[in-house]
Amino acid sequence: MAVKEILVSEVGPRDGLQSIKAIMPTEYKKNWISAMAKAGIAEIEVGSFVPASVFPQLADTAQIVRYAKTIKGLQVAALVPNLKGAIAAINAGVDKLSIPFSVSETHSLRNLKRNHQQVIDEVRQISRYISQLPKAQRPHFEASLSTAFGCTIEGTIAESAVLASAEKLIEAGAAEVGLSDTTGYGNPQQVKRLVEQIKACVGNEKLTSVHLHNTRGLGLANALAAIEAGIETIDSSMAGIGGCPFAPGASGNIVTEDLVFMLQSMGIQTGIDLPQLLEVRHILRAAFPSEPLYGFTPDAGIPKGFVAP
Amino acid sequence: MAVKEILVSEVGPRDGLQSIKAIMPTEYKKNWISAMAKAGIAEIEVGSFVPASVFPQLADTAQIVRYAKTIKGLQVAALVPNLKGAIAAINAGVDKLSIPFSVSETHSLRNLKRNHQQVIDEVRQISRYISQLPKAQRPHFEASLSTAFGCTIEGTIAESAVLASAEKLIEAGAAEVGLSDTTGYGNPQQVKRLVEQIKACVGNEKLTSVHLHNTRGLGLANALAAIEAGIETIDSSMAGIGGCPFAPGASGNIVTEDLVFMLQSMGIQTGIDLPQLLEVRHILRAAFPSEPLYGFTPDAGIPKGFVAP
Repeated sequence: MAVKEILVSEVGPRDGLQSIKAIMPTEYKKNWISAMAKAGIAEIEVGSFVPASVFPQLADTAQIVRYAKTIKGLQVAALVPNLKGAIAAINAGVDKLSIPFSVSETHSLRNLKRNHQQVIDEVRQISRYISQLPKAQRPHFEASLSTAFGCTIEGTIAESAVLASAEKLIEAGAAEVGLSDTTGYGNPQQVKRLVEQIKACVGNEKLTSVHLHNTRGLGLANALAAIEAGIETIDSSMAGIGGCPFAPGASGNIVTEDLVFMLQSMGIQTGIDLPQLLEVRHILRAAFPSEPLYGFTPDAGIPKGFVAP
Repeated sequence: MAVKEILVSEVGPRDGLQSIKAIMPTEYKKNWISAMAKAGIAEIEVGSFVPASVFPQLADTAQIVRYAKTIKGLQVAALVPNLKGAIAAINAGVDKLSIPFSVSETHSLRNLKRNHQQVIDEVRQISRYISQLPKAQRPHFEASLSTAFGCTIEGTIAESAVLASAEKLIEAGAAEVGLSDTTGYGNPQQVKRLVEQIKACVGNEKLTSVHLHNTRGLGLANALAAIEAGIETIDSSMAGIGGCPFAPGASGNIVTEDLVFMLQSMGIQTGIDLPQLLEVRHILRAAFPSEPLYGFTPDAGIPKGFVAP
């Protein structure tokens, strides 16, 4: 494998915190994000511009975006459910925004309360809104293909539906699609096949990232398959916190600490100082003394004689 | 990937039980082994012919082998540390025996209390002993390359040392070598490279199995890499119990339940009924009410709409 570098995109402050009932105070979030950035995490999805009534845990997202933008070199991402959220995100100064398009329409209705056509309309409006901004203010705009590997409500999702969705989202103006295993249904072969097919369908440069969950323990195997298929950015969350409350049974993301260890042990650059990153976990533990934290590398430690690339 | 079938070799009754202080009663072991075999596990390493003073948990191995041999179609394997153990294993009727050769000589001295030359001598004697048996009574004889990916005591292990060890073991009469990540130091690239190199060195048919630990969460990614490199048998343990007491910090094996789910989801035949296998876990939980049991598929369940190959 000739891969030299992978961007680890930390989604804990968004996907992770939305799955935990307790609310992390704003100052605590700032400390956590800043500590991860210091350890070398170059992109962080810091929150979601959804109504505070849906996710009170993320009600301070605009404030967090503004703070995160003061951290030098950090790419600040946020999730948005619609045009209104996108405008708020852009006003706060995000570098990147993602709208989830659930290939399972049932999940879309529960998650965004919008059917496929309505989400496509939002994508079109967001895209138009961005194109009218001065060039320097335009964030990168991604539409993620959620539940692409299966849905806890609908079950199997046809790959043809994923491809058709990818085409529609690009046609509607998304700069890129992301491939998302919201439910942890995916397997390495499926990851490879879908990545290759979507790239062939919408263009190699229009799918560069995957978002994987470790629901059935296959997260890192799926990440490996994604890398082999040419993916450059992998979402993960510190301690594997995360899960979509609207997809029953969907559990945590792949664990940032283990992902970074895997990448580095394979000689792939991440820009991350792993021992320093492992220290940051204490912030999360202190914030949530009784939440389950996942990951094996934090317990096992870095192997004797290990040299990061 | 054109792989059609993988043999899942369950090592819980040996590698798993040796790492748990409490002793599973003989009748309980029989139930557990029989339930796993009923669920379709075709090969089980049922114990270790080591002195009861070292592993009192495995003191009943001869009895367990005799029982397991009554289960139709089950391949019964055992670990042996030396000729004496091998003779006991053969007398009990094993189909397969493995002797661990630690590429880290420091680990070898702690684990078997023998240096490299002494272990090679045992291999030679076992091989001679087997060759004098009537053909129908000869077990398959494997020497496993332990600590091949790194040692918790010595640190990095040179790949050249692994290759040289493989050659010596085959030369001394092992029918096959196994590749063992005793310490959970391995990464997918290293797995692929070592499998390919050893196969090139001693012959494609003389390395067909890997033994992986999930110490840093990379277990299934490593298994995937092994399959891609042509491995046909993968060791794993139910609930991921396991670990070598003589390699400090080495923890559990890859989890059988998650491995089987990964393989089946990729369309690879295992002969195992996964829902039935998941039920067997209750036997283990009842035996060890307070031991940590690993695995994600048991909690998450099998995906909606999932069809086993």
